[in-house]
Amino acid sequence: MKIKITKTHHSRMNETDFEKLGFGEVFSDHMFSMEYRNGEWVSPEIIPFGKIEIYPSLCSLHYGQVVFEGLKAFRAGNRVNVFRPEKYHERLNKSCQRLCIPEVSYDVFITALKELTVLDKEWIPKKKGNSLYIRPFVFASDNFLGVKIADTYRFMIITSPVGSYYKEGINPVKLVTSGEYIRAAKGGLGAAKTPANYASSLLPAQEAKKKGFTQVLWLDGLERKYIEESGAMNVFFRIDNELITPALGGTILEGVTRNTVIHLAKKWDMDVVERRISIDEVLLASNEGRLKEAFGTGTAAVISPVGWIQHESEKITINGGKIGTLSQRLYDEITALQYGEKADTSGWCYSI
Amino acid sequence: MKIKITKTHHSRMNETDFEKLGFGEVFSDHMFSMEYRNGEWVSPEIIPFGKIEIYPSLCSLHYGQVVFEGLKAFRAGNRVNVFRPEKYHERLNKSCQRLCIPEVSYDVFITALKELTVLDKEWIPKKKGNSLYIRPFVFASDNFLGVKIADTYRFMIITSPVGSYYKEGINPVKLVTSGEYIRAAKGGLGAAKTPANYASSLLPAQEAKKKGFTQVLWLDGLERKYIEESGAMNVFFRIDNELITPALGGTILEGVTRNTVIHLAKKWDMDVVERRISIDEVLLASNEGRLKEAFGTGTAAVISPVGWIQHESEKITINGGKIGTLSQRLYDEITALQYGEKADTSGWCYSI
Repeated sequence: MKIKITKTHHSRMNETDFEKLGFGEVFSDHMFSMEYRNGEWVSPEIIPFGKIEIYPSLCSLHYGQVVFEGLKAFRAGNRVNVFRPEKYHERLNKSCQRLCIPEVSYDVFITALKELTVLDKEWIPKKKGNSLYIRPFVFASDNFLGVKIADTYRFMIITSPVGSYYKEGINPVKLVTSGEYIRAAKGGLGAAKTPANYASSLLPAQEAKKKGFTQVLWLDGLERKYIEESGAMNVFFRIDNELITPALGGTILEGVTRNTVIHLAKKWDMDVVERRISIDEVLLASNEGRLKEAFGTGTAAVISPVGWIQHESEKITINGGKIGTLSQRLYDEITALQYGEKADTSGWCYSI
Repeated sequence: MKIKITKTHHSRMNETDFEKLGFGEVFSDHMFSMEYRNGEWVSPEIIPFGKIEIYPSLCSLHYGQVVFEGLKAFRAGNRVNVFRPEKYHERLNKSCQRLCIPEVSYDVFITALKELTVLDKEWIPKKKGNSLYIRPFVFASDNFLGVKIADTYRFMIITSPVGSYYKEGINPVKLVTSGEYIRAAKGGLGAAKTPANYASSLLPAQEAKKKGFTQVLWLDGLERKYIEESGAMNVFFRIDNELITPALGGTILEGVTRNTVIHLAKKWDMDVVERRISIDEVLLASNEGRLKEAFGTGTAAVISPVGWIQHESEKITINGGKIGTLSQRLYDEITALQYGEKADTSGWCYSI
C-alpha cells in the first residue's frame, strides 16, 4: 500500500506539556485516513490532524455503525514497540463482522500504523508509564436517515500521547455491582468494540461514582449473577491457587491484555481457568479467606487492582485494599516487555 | 428563544424530484443548531443545511453518546400539521436521561421545529402519503478518547421530504424471529432512541433479508420467547376480540404511533391489552384460527401489516397475507388526522 503523505506546517508539539499528560486529550500532528467506496478501500493518506467535514445526516452518528480499537506504542531504547498489533487487528475485524462493516486487511492496518507512528515519533512520550495511544476506527460515511448497512466507510487512525489512564494510577479501585443496569447481553454487541457498549455504561458508571465507587462490576444480563467485566476492563480473581477469569461468551470484550495475562500466568505455572464465576462465589471466597487478589486488565491501565467490591448490602475488602503480588508481577512484566526492558520471547512487540 | 437565522443563497429545491422521494436521502435547505456548554443551551441558529466540522476525536462518534427523534409534518390544506410533537419531545428527554445528555426544553424544541418548518415550508411534499420527516438529535461534542460523560453537546434538527418508508408500501411484510441475536435486554438501552439499538440490528436484519424476510421479529433477551418489536416498529396482534401489544418494560421503544393506535382502538371500543405475549401464543392463536391480523407501528410507516411470521421451523400466514380491516382502518384514520382530513378531537396535531 502506498500512502500519500501531507505533512503539517504547524506542529503543535511545543504547545504540549509532556509532563502533564492526561488520557486521550492531546493528539499528535498527523492522522491516517482511507475511504471505502464501490466495494474497496481506497485513497490511503496521512494528513495533518484536524477537523473533518461531515453532513449532519452522517448515518454512523445516528445509527452507530462504528467500530474502533485502542493499542499503544512505547519507547524502547532507540526503537518503538507497538504491543501486539495483530491481536488488536484481529479484534477490529471481528467487530467489523458484527457491525456489517468491511474488514481492513492486516497489511493496511500495520502499514498505516507504522508510517503514522514513524512520522509522529517525537510524540511518543519518553517517560516510562507514558505511551502513545493509537486509535484506529471505522465509521459508516453514507449520508441518509434510515436503518440500513452503509455503502461507504472511512477508516482513520489518530494517536494521542498519554499518561496513565486511571488518575488513581496503580492504586486499587472500588467496584460496585449494578442491580438495575447491564453492559450487554447474549445476542447483542458485547463482544464488539463499538460505541453501543460504552453508551450503555455511562449512566450506571455515573451512579457508581456518586456512591463513591470507581466503576461498575458488570453482572450478566440473563441471571444477574455471573461476573462479566468491570468498567471497560476484563477481570481476574485469584482464589486459592487458581487464577479465574470470566469465559468469553459473546457478551464480554476479548481483551488483548486479558490474553496476555492468561499467557503469562500459564507460563508461570499457575492454574488459569476461563469459566463462569458468580459474584456469590467471589464473596464466599473472600469471606473464607481464599480470595487472594482481584484485578482488571485493559490496554489503558494494563493492570488495575481491585481493592473493594460491593454487591447489594455486602462489601468485601481484597488483600487489605492493597495491590497483590501477582497484580504487581504482571504489571511489572507486561510493562517491562512493552518498554523493551525484557526479552520479548513471545513475539508480542512489533518493533519499529 | 430568539433564533438567529441565516438563509441559504442556493436553494436545492429545483434539483429535487418530489415525484421520486425516497426516505431520508434528500434534505431541506436549512437546519437548526444549538450548543450546550458551561451547563446551558446557547446560540440557537438556523443555517443552510450543509457540512459541519468535527474532530475525528469527537467523543460521540467513538462512545455513542447520542439520542435522536423522528417525527413528521404534513400538508393539511393551507396549514401544516406536525403530529404529536409533545410525545416525541417527551421521549427525546427520556432518551437524554438514559444517555446522560442534558435535556432540551419543550420551548426550545417546538420553537426550533416551528421556525425551521416555516422557513422550509416549500419542502413539505404536496402529495398525500408524502411528508416532511423531522430529525432532531443531540450528540456529545467533546473531543477526547475515554469513556466519560461529555461536557459539551450539540442539538440539531434536520428535515427531509420523504415518500413512503417501506418501498413495499402498505403491503404486508414477512417477519422472522432470530434465534441468535437480540435487539436489547433489560437494563440496557432498549427504551432509548439511541444509535446502539440500531447498530445491533444491522447484522440480524441482513441475515433475515438473505433468507427472504423483510425484517426481524425480536424476541426478549432473557427467555427468548416474548415478542418485543419488529425491525424498528412496535407490534400488535389481534387475537379473538383483543388487540394485544407487548407491554413497555424498558427494553422496547415507547412508540408514539403505538400510543396513537392504543388510543384509537380504545376509542373504537376494542379491548386493548398491553402485556407480555410469547411467540408460541401467536403461533397457537394462528393455528387455531384466532389470530385475525398483526401489524407494526412506527412514525415512518404508520401501520405496516404483517402477512407472514416464521419462528424456527414453523411459518404462519396471517389474514391470507393481506392487510386486515383494523390495520387499514387505523392507517386511514391516522393519515386522515395527519393530513387534516378529519377533525383532530384529540389535539394531536400541532398546526402551523
